[in-house]
Amino acid sequence: MKEKAFSEFRFIEKIKESVRSYSPNLATGIGDDCAVISCDGRSDLLVTTDLFIEGVHFDRRWFSMEQVGGKALRVSLSDIAAMGGMAEFAFVSLAAPSSLPGEEIERLYAGIRETADAYGVTIGGGDLSRSTGGIVVDMMLLGKADKEQAILRSGARPGDRIFVSGTLGDGALALKLLQTGTEDREKNQLVDRHVRPEPRLALGRLLAGGKHRASAMIDVSDGLSSDLSHLCGASGVGAIISEKRLPRSEVFQRVCSRVGKGESALLLHGGEDYELLFTLPSDGAEKILSERLPCPVTEIGEILAVPEGLSIEWASGKREALQPLGYDHFRRTEGPQNPGAGQSLP
Amino acid sequence: MKEKAFSEFRFIEKIKESVRSYSPNLATGIGDDCAVISCDGRSDLLVTTDLFIEGVHFDRRWFSMEQVGGKALRVSLSDIAAMGGMAEFAFVSLAAPSSLPGEEIERLYAGIRETADAYGVTIGGGDLSRSTGGIVVDMMLLGKADKEQAILRSGARPGDRIFVSGTLGDGALALKLLQTGTEDREKNQLVDRHVRPEPRLALGRLLAGGKHRASAMIDVSDGLSSDLSHLCGASGVGAIISEKRLPRSEVFQRVCSRVGKGESALLLHGGEDYELLFTLPSDGAEKILSERLPCPVTEIGEILAVPEGLSIEWASGKREALQPLGYDHFRRTEGPQNPGAGQSLP
Repeated sequence: MKEKAFSEFRFIEKIKESVRSYSPNLATGIGDDCAVISCDGRSDLLVTTDLFIEGVHFDRRWFSMEQVGGKALRVSLSDIAAMGGMAEFAFVSLAAPSSLPGEEIERLYAGIRETADAYGVTIGGGDLSRSTGGIVVDMMLLGKADKEQAILRSGARPGDRIFVSGTLGDGALALKLLQTGTEDREKNQLVDRHVRPEPRLALGRLLAGGKHRASAMIDVSDGLSSDLSHLCGASGVGAIISEKRLPRSEVFQRVCSRVGKGESALLLHGGEDYELLFTLPSDGAEKILSERLPCPVTEIGEILAVPEGLSIEWASGKREALQPLGYDHFRRTEGPQNPGAGQSLP
Repeated sequence: MKEKAFSEFRFIEKIKESVRSYSPNLATGIGDDCAVISCDGRSDLLVTTDLFIEGVHFDRRWFSMEQVGGKALRVSLSDIAAMGGMAEFAFVSLAAPSSLPGEEIERLYAGIRETADAYGVTIGGGDLSRSTGGIVVDMMLLGKADKEQAILRSGARPGDRIFVSGTLGDGALALKLLQTGTEDREKNQLVDRHVRPEPRLALGRLLAGGKHRASAMIDVSDGLSSDLSHLCGASGVGAIISEKRLPRSEVFQRVCSRVGKGESALLLHGGEDYELLFTLPSDGAEKILSERLPCPVTEIGEILAVPEGLSIEWASGKREALQPLGYDHFRRTEGPQNPGAGQSLP
């Protein structure tokens, strides 16, 4: 079958197949939230890069320059969280149109610095260039994980239970309100989640520990359906999730009902969540629910054998195949598209 | 004195002063060709990121897509060479307009892969996004240097002799010919230097060895005058260089005389050379000139005490202060500007 449209994810698959490794130190390359590189006897190096582009990932009407810088770092920190790692260094490449006043560049950088200070990340360098388009930030993070303890996308097994942190849909709903100019008295609360997502570093670390070790993990940036599909693809498994169980905030539900927005598409395909989606072996799952966790965690489904594919049980009780309709930067066809941070190569 | 114009280099200085370090492992941060991070007992990690942007760093009229990818990697490899290091991993962030056919993206990536294969570099990951402007490549390299043996910009001392590898001006002259549409029968040879600069990795490694260890090193990307100024600034020294001694290729001289281009500005401020500029203690300098080197090396001047500043002895015998007139991405004033790879934070 001829593939007509260029797809980000198919392209990444092709790259993955074609690159050669010259280093014995690359433990995990293209296809996870971070690359994992053997470093010394005690730890592995984590590497992630994320583009954050004006007009694609953010809109200056809704972001102060400080917030642009802050979010660029936050979404990368979320990739480190998804490996169960700690962030150590940031390298910031910044391209800005020459029409942008120097003070604005400084404010953007101040937002990065403030966020780096909040998370104990050292800015180690970067690059600065003129841009012929809008602002482009490429955020590269170096982090660490205990040796061979980074949690990959590929470890989920049939019978594992599926969890997600926090709530879904808030950021995507905020973006809808902003894009359509819809006003609501609780809009600001949602917008804050869009502008300042919270990387789940503490939960990630806990899930990489021996006690409640997750079998697989990914962060939800492209949308639950797409990111679950990535996790299942990497693990070679299927999954079923329950619509009823998808965690949503009260403000999300109130605003949805007031502005007449359907909840399901936002929860499943909205993206912009930066929550952790992870799987736990059935027995470990019991323990984690009874413990004190750094943020709420909700069980949303179960890993199945691969022939069963990806499916959803709707609130009505009906079961259906779940299509990954999250964000693809180069998909030409119509469908729900969020401006999530895109698929990392990792 | 009030600074009116936003300057890339002043901005980088400001960033350097304002960032805080949370890691004991950052040996060298902002302000060199690469950051240096303590890794294990035997080696240090080198990190460099370089933006390579359509309309700023390259023009698709003169670059095939394969060459765009290849050069993006080559200029980053030059930063690793300037530390005396070895390149190990590349992480590629790529933003492309959605109008760009998928095959073109694949060709760009093939150029990166082919160059990575040629230099034994493993592509470890990256990011892929839609761009609202032209093509943006951000190339991040991880490399290694022997422990505490990376050559910094800051080690030059008065009395040290100044050297440069290869020849200067070829790439900048090529760009002039291309931009002005000037034809010449030897144009292609120069254009090849613009499109496929040779990172001087073998020379860099040799200069980091014990025998001929350089006291300071930088790669010439912004232009000799600017890069010498960066090296002297980091070392807290002055320098004098001789115009007569600046190495130029025969084809450069022939084409300059045919098309009526003055040589000096191209040699001094042209940039796009990706040669190594380095200093050697006076005694070590003798030895290196008598040895077999992987590429030609020319002595061009001497390091002085800082109050003597930066100066040039013109071919006429006249001595003058040398202004750093190489590339600054955000300089608004007129002056020679090349499209060099820009100043790295490192």
